[in-house]
Amino acid sequence: MNYSIIMYIVGWVLKVEAAFMVLPTAVALIYGEDNWKVFLGCGIVLYITGKLMTLKKPDDNRFYAREGFVAVAMGWVMLSIGGAVPFFLSGEIPSVVDALFEIVSGFTTTGASILTDVEAMSRSMLFWRSFSHWIGGMGVLVFILAVLPMVGGQNIYLIKAETTGPEAGKLVPRLRNTAVYLYIIYIVMSALQFILLVLGDMPVFDALCYVFGTAGTGGFGIKGDSMAGYSTYIQMVTAVFMLLFGVNFNFYFFIVSKKIRSAFGMEEVRWYFIIFFASVALIVLSLWINTGSGCIKDAVFQVSSIMTSTGYATVDFDKWPTLAKYILCIVMFTGACAGSTGGGIKVARFVIYFKQIGKQLSFLVHPRSVKILRMDGKKIEHNTIRIVNTYLLIYIAVFFVSMLLLSLDNYDLTTTFTAVSATFNNIGPGLGMVGPAGNFSGFSVLSKIVMIFDMLAGRLEIFPMIVLLMPATWRRNG
Amino acid sequence: MNYSIIMYIVGWVLKVEAAFMVLPTAVALIYGEDNWKVFLGCGIVLYITGKLMTLKKPDDNRFYAREGFVAVAMGWVMLSIGGAVPFFLSGEIPSVVDALFEIVSGFTTTGASILTDVEAMSRSMLFWRSFSHWIGGMGVLVFILAVLPMVGGQNIYLIKAETTGPEAGKLVPRLRNTAVYLYIIYIVMSALQFILLVLGDMPVFDALCYVFGTAGTGGFGIKGDSMAGYSTYIQMVTAVFMLLFGVNFNFYFFIVSKKIRSAFGMEEVRWYFIIFFASVALIVLSLWINTGSGCIKDAVFQVSSIMTSTGYATVDFDKWPTLAKYILCIVMFTGACAGSTGGGIKVARFVIYFKQIGKQLSFLVHPRSVKILRMDGKKIEHNTIRIVNTYLLIYIAVFFVSMLLLSLDNYDLTTTFTAVSATFNNIGPGLGMVGPAGNFSGFSVLSKIVMIFDMLAGRLEIFPMIVLLMPATWRRNG
Repeated sequence: MNYSIIMYIVGWVLKVEAAFMVLPTAVALIYGEDNWKVFLGCGIVLYITGKLMTLKKPDDNRFYAREGFVAVAMGWVMLSIGGAVPFFLSGEIPSVVDALFEIVSGFTTTGASILTDVEAMSRSMLFWRSFSHWIGGMGVLVFILAVLPMVGGQNIYLIKAETTGPEAGKLVPRLRNTAVYLYIIYIVMSALQFILLVLGDMPVFDALCYVFGTAGTGGFGIKGDSMAGYSTYIQMVTAVFMLLFGVNFNFYFFIVSKKIRSAFGMEEVRWYFIIFFASVALIVLSLWINTGSGCIKDAVFQVSSIMTSTGYATVDFDKWPTLAKYILCIVMFTGACAGSTGGGIKVARFVIYFKQIGKQLSFLVHPRSVKILRMDGKKIEHNTIRIVNTYLLIYIAVFFVSMLLLSLDNYDLTTTFTAVSATFNNIGPGLGMVGPAGNFSGFSVLSKIVMIFDMLAGRLEIFPMIVLLMPATWRRNG
Repeated sequence: MNYSIIMYIVGWVLKVEAAFMVLPTAVALIYGEDNWKVFLGCGIVLYITGKLMTLKKPDDNRFYAREGFVAVAMGWVMLSIGGAVPFFLSGEIPSVVDALFEIVSGFTTTGASILTDVEAMSRSMLFWRSFSHWIGGMGVLVFILAVLPMVGGQNIYLIKAETTGPEAGKLVPRLRNTAVYLYIIYIVMSALQFILLVLGDMPVFDALCYVFGTAGTGGFGIKGDSMAGYSTYIQMVTAVFMLLFGVNFNFYFFIVSKKIRSAFGMEEVRWYFIIFFASVALIVLSLWINTGSGCIKDAVFQVSSIMTSTGYATVDFDKWPTLAKYILCIVMFTGACAGSTGGGIKVARFVIYFKQIGKQLSFLVHPRSVKILRMDGKKIEHNTIRIVNTYLLIYIAVFFVSMLLLSLDNYDLTTTFTAVSATFNNIGPGLGMVGPAGNFSGFSVLSKIVMIFDMLAGRLEIFPMIVLLMPATWRRNG
C-alpha cells in the first residue's frame, strides 16, 4: 500500500472542505448567529491539518485500484468527521454519533435525519447541512480532479471508485476536461433551478437549501413537513429537477457536445424514464382504486423523489395503499441512472440484469444459440457482467448483515427493512417509524453506526468501504 | 417441439396418480366415509385418460432440454388438476381455485392452506392432502424413472428439470439405479420416523400424515394448532427428521455406498448444519434478550421447520421479537440442501454466491490474482456459475412481479412479502395474516393464481414454468 499518496489525497480533501466552510461562516454572520466562530475555527483547523498532510508531494507514484479504493473511502470518512464537528461543537446536535450520522447522511446525499425538530436549528447549521448534499452529490474527489493538477496516474482509479454505476470508463481519455464539464453542467442546472424557485416566490435561503438538496438528490429539508407547505409550482419545479439530476450526466455531456444521437441512444436513460412513468401510472391507479382519487401531482413528486433517492415528501406516503408503497420500495432499489447524483442500485445495472435473464432464457430453449449482450449498441464486456453480478451479491450480503444488526432494536420488520433500504440506497425516509413523518433518532448507537456505514457504502457503491475493511488490503506484501 | 413424447410422459404421470388414489380410497372405506366413491371415480378417469395418452409409444425420440422442461411443467400442472378434483367433487373445498391452491400446495410440498378449519375435513381428504406432500417430495417424474423402462435419452433432461439445486448431474451415469436407491432411502427414512412417532403414542393416522408432511418437507397438519398440541418427544422426533430430510440425498447415497469421506466432504451439508446451529443460537439469544427466557426446543423446531421449508409450528412465531422473525425470514430464502425434498434458493447456491464474492473481493485488492472457484474440491464450471447467477436474477424478477400483483389486495407489506416468500420458497406459513395462526383464504382469486404459479415455479426451480410460458418455446422452428 502506498500510504504517502493516500495521505496526500486525503489532505487535499480536508483543504477543500475547509474552503467550503467559508460559506456557512458567511451565512452565520449574515443572520447574526454566533456559529460563525464554530465554522471559522473548524475551517482553520481543517486547513492546517490538510496543509500538513500535503506539505510534501509523495515521491512514490505507484497507484493502483487498491490505493484508489482506500483513498476514496478514507477521504469520505475524514470529510465526514470534519463536517460533523460544527454540529457537535455548536451544541445543536449534542451526541457525537448523531452529529456524524447527520453529516454522513448529508455528504452521501441520503437525507435521513436524527433531528426531531428541524425548525429549531440555526440558519447556518441548516445551510451547512443542506450544502453537504451539494458537495457530496458530485463527489469531492472528482472535484479535486477538476480543479487541481494531480500527480499523474491515479485519476482513473479515483474516478472509478467515486462515481456511480457500472461504466465510468467511457469518458476517460480527457478525464480532467470531463470533470470540469460535468461540474459546469451541475452548477448551471443548480442555478437554473434556483432562479425558477425564486421566481415562484420562494425565500432565497429556502431556495438555496432546496436546490442543494435537489442537485445532490439528498433530501434534507428545513421544514418539519418537508415540502408539503410549498406551492404546487415550487413542488413541480423541484420534481422536474429531481428527475433531471437523476439522469446520467453523460446524457447532458453528449447534448452539450452536440452528439444528440448518442444522447438519445442511451438505453439507460430511456429505461429510466419508462420506469418513472410506469411507476407514476401504477401509483395513480392504486390511489384511485383505494381512495377514489389519484393525485397525479403527488405521485409524480414522490416517484421523482424516491427513485432519484432524494427523499423530499409532499404527502405522508406511509399512509398510501400497499401497491403504491410497494412501487416506492421498488424504485428505492432501482434507483437513478449511473453517473448521476442519485443513489440505489442504478438503472444501468438492472438493464444488464434483464439482458442476462433474456439471454439465459433463450439459451434454455435453444441451447446452441449464441447471443451477445449489447448496451447502447456496444458489446458488454464479460468483466462488466461479472462485476455487476458480484455487486448484486455483495449488495444483498451487506443488506442482510445490516438488517440483522438493526433488528436487535426490535422495531417492526417494515421499519427495520426500510431503514436499511433508505440509508443503503441513500434515499432518506423509509416507511413505518422512519416514514416521511418520522425520523431516525430512536435507533440505538449500534444501529446508527451500521447505517453510517451503509450510507457511505451506498454512496461509494460498496467496494471502497469493503476494501477498507478487508485485512488483505492492509497486508504488507502485494 | 416433440409433442408426442410429452403427451406420453404426461400420460404416465396421470396413470401413476391414479394408482396413488387407491390409498385415500382405502382410508375412506376404513373410516366409513362416502368419499371412497370420489377417489375411486377420479382414479378410474385418470387411469383411462393416462392409458389413452400412452397407447402409442412415441416414434419420434428427439428429446432435448426444452422438451424436458415442458414435460416436467406440464406433468406437474396435470397432476395438480387431477389431484384437485376430489377436494372439489366432495364439496369439502367448494371453490375450484381454492381446491387447486390446496393440492398445488400439497404436491409442491409448500403446506400453505386456504382452509380456515382443518379439523372439519374428513379423514380421507386429510390423508390425500398430506399424501400429496409425500408424492411431491421426491418428484413424480423421478418416480416414473425409477419404476419404468422409458424410451431412452430423455432421462437426463427430466431429472435436471425436476430435481432441486444446481448440480444434479453428479450421479447421472447409472441414472435409473440412482433413482431406485434414492427412493429406497426415502421410504426407509419415512418408515423409521413413523415407527418412532408411533412409539411416542401418536395415533397411527396422525403419524402417517405427519410423516408424509415431514418427508416431503411439506407441512400440512391435521390439527388447528399445527404441532403445538403434541408431546415434546413427538415434536423433537419431527424436528430431527425435518432436518434430515433437508440434507442433500447424495449424502445418504454416499453413506449407503460406504463412501464416508465423500459424504462428510460435502461442503453444502457442512454449511447447512452451520447455518442451522447459528440460526438456532441467534433465535435463542433474541428470545432471551426480549422475553428473559430462550426456549431452545421451539427454536430448534422452528428453524428446522422453516429452513427445510416444511412449515410446521409449535409456537406462533409471528409474536417473536424482530431479530428472531428476521432469522426465520433469512432461512426461508437460504432453504435446504440441493437434492433434498426441501425448498428455498438452496444452500449450495449460497455457497457459490459467497465464493464469488470472495473471489471478486480479492480481485479488487490484487487485480492480477487468478483464483479458481472450487466446491467439494472440484472446479465449479463457468456454466454453473452463470446459471446460478441467472437463477438469482430470475428469482428476484418473479418475486417482484408476484408482490406487485399480490399488493393489489392491499394487505400490509409484511403479509404481502411473506405470502410470496412462503409460497415461492415452498414453506407454508409466513408472517402477519398468513402467520402460523392464519391462513391464505383471504386473498383474491388473482392472488391465489399467482401463488399457485409461484409454488410450482418454486418446486421446479423456476426454469420449467418460465419455459412453459415463453412464446419462443412454442414457435415451430427450432
